[in-house]
Amino acid sequence: MSATSDFAQTPEPPYYAVIFSSRRTEGDNDYGNMAERMASLAAMQPGFLGVESVRGADGFGITVSYWASAESIAAWKADVEHAAAQAMGKARWYEHYEIRIAKVERAYGRPSVRHCGQAAGSGTNA
Amino acid sequence: MSATSDFAQTPEPPYYAVIFSSRRTEGDNDYGNMAERMASLAAMQPGFLGVESVRGADGFGITVSYWASAESIAAWKADVEHAAAQAMGKARWYEHYEIRIAKVERAYGRPSVRHCGQAAGSGTNA
Repeated sequence: MSATSDFAQTPEPPYYAVIFSSRRTEGDNDYGNMAERMASLAAMQPGFLGVESVRGADGFGITVSYWASAESIAAWKADVEHAAAQAMGKARWYEHYEIRIAKVERAYGRPSVRHCGQAAGSGTNA
Repeated sequence: MSATSDFAQTPEPPYYAVIFSSRRTEGDNDYGNMAERMASLAAMQPGFLGVESVRGADGFGITVSYWASAESIAAWKADVEHAAAQAMGKARWYEHYEIRIAKVERAYGRPSVRHCGQAAGSGTNA
């Protein structure tokens, strides 16, 4: 991933975030293929806005995907392949995971490059 | 950090999350000291529930802190030392950052160890 694409290009709030915190199991167990397929499927899903993801060398990781609405998250979850991956992932890929579904109410950042076609700097001041 | 303490021990929703995505600058620039002090200050703040944090070898990181309310986040932001760190951090520690404040509406995980004193497995079914 390039430096710029690490950051999701999200619109002005409100929108939704799925915060997925996890600890990997030892070994790959076909995880790489699954993760790539899941990312492709998410990107094709209506309402998908973007994703940010990091995993440390110790196996702990955080992935935050952004969605237009709670409905778009529900539709993604209902996706057959995703459901299959979730079922398998419980034992195979993750020792432990936590999923939190949250409504983003405010957002700001620097440099302000996020909101294409909108005024830069809106919603600033930490 | 131990494997178990990587995960924040959060209560049943609703509560708030501050999603901080960032790319570090090159060099330490006293970042380690600042990060440690900020973490200590957050932990003392009323309404602080916990934090999860990962930074990859490439300098991109995600830190999610959890809070009891929007008011507790506002109080933390008003903290003098934190404000100072934010002002300095813009140029010194981060090439780019995005902050999103979100209300957690649902949460679930495996194994279900999160909600002490509450029934395990509530809010399951991905």
